[in-house]
Amino acid sequence: MTIHDWHTGPYPARVRIAVAEKGLQPQVRFHSVDLLKGEHKQPGFLAINYSGTLPVLELADGSFIAECTAITEYLDHLDGQPTLTGTTAFEKGTIHMMSRRAELEVLDAISVYFHHATPGLGPTVELYQNAEWGLRQRDKALRGMRYFDSVLKTQSFVAGEVFSMADITLFGGLVFAEIVRVAVPPELSALHAWHARMLARPSVEGWKTM
Amino acid sequence: MTIHDWHTGPYPARVRIAVAEKGLQPQVRFHSVDLLKGEHKQPGFLAINYSGTLPVLELADGSFIAECTAITEYLDHLDGQPTLTGTTAFEKGTIHMMSRRAELEVLDAISVYFHHATPGLGPTVELYQNAEWGLRQRDKALRGMRYFDSVLKTQSFVAGEVFSMADITLFGGLVFAEIVRVAVPPELSALHAWHARMLARPSVEGWKTM
Repeated sequence: MTIHDWHTGPYPARVRIAVAEKGLQPQVRFHSVDLLKGEHKQPGFLAINYSGTLPVLELADGSFIAECTAITEYLDHLDGQPTLTGTTAFEKGTIHMMSRRAELEVLDAISVYFHHATPGLGPTVELYQNAEWGLRQRDKALRGMRYFDSVLKTQSFVAGEVFSMADITLFGGLVFAEIVRVAVPPELSALHAWHARMLARPSVEGWKTM
Repeated sequence: MTIHDWHTGPYPARVRIAVAEKGLQPQVRFHSVDLLKGEHKQPGFLAINYSGTLPVLELADGSFIAECTAITEYLDHLDGQPTLTGTTAFEKGTIHMMSRRAELEVLDAISVYFHHATPGLGPTVELYQNAEWGLRQRDKALRGMRYFDSVLKTQSFVAGEVFSMADITLFGGLVFAEIVRVAVPPELSALHAWHARMLARPSVEGWKTM
């Protein structure tokens, strides 16, 4: 399998951590798509992912799977033993809910802030910006961090007592927050403690240098 | 199970169609949350879904699952025989990719247009609007319709040759487009033909009156 991504990207981080959680590193090679040059918005890349986002997984038969949640579902079921996306109906529902919420309330919000209310990837890539919208999304992300802190006060992981895709998604949000210097407020102690536990996971160490 | 929703909502449509596809109508009751009065943005509702969106599924034990994709995953796995979200890794990956793409490129884009560049749910609910952003999202949705037309020129359903959650998501997008009078361009014949096939499915008939 080939993963088309960029080694420091927060969304790529989600899939790289999933690869490591599943022990799939030996089966994966990475192909770098130069985010800083906007290669992901050029026709060649748009032909493999209409939405123009990283990462994209290319399979041996030449087909492509885009979108982090979709790629994670694929990787998690390759061995028939899902460990990231749940096994029961309730687990699947809860993990997908919390992962989507981590996107909506933190990761995607920070992404919009970056692309709209900061220089983002620079003027040749950011052809349209809406700073007012971007700033609102930063504030949304800060509220989202408070919400997840409240969740993590009463449970060990984002979707319950077991590590899952939802933890990876929220971690991606904090990766992006660090890049754009949106600090997690210091009083969010449960979120900070969870983040420290995530950084100590073997799958999370070294995702930038896979 | 109780589904908290609003009978004409495009996102509620997604879950109602999934309920019908799975034959779960006898096990479900509906509780109306008054969108037009902004009940989904009040503290009582936010306590069951932080994001303040419909629908939400309430289980017999009092737990809640929000987000259409998550609810669909739950409903689809209740009987251990998934028919909407795939069975193989490749099916799961492809269905999740195409469903997310239908959200990003059509359904969610139309939703942002509605809430930001039209009166939306009215001034007591729409406390902040960004018309410029909303109009860009309408244009994005129109481009998204062209993309899905191109997909449906070469395959019968959104994620391949089998009906799936991805079809339901795109159908939700066209439900919303109709509400806000963003017409599907007439030349998108494959998209129109697919839409007609969707409207003829038993699960799709009568979702507003379940």
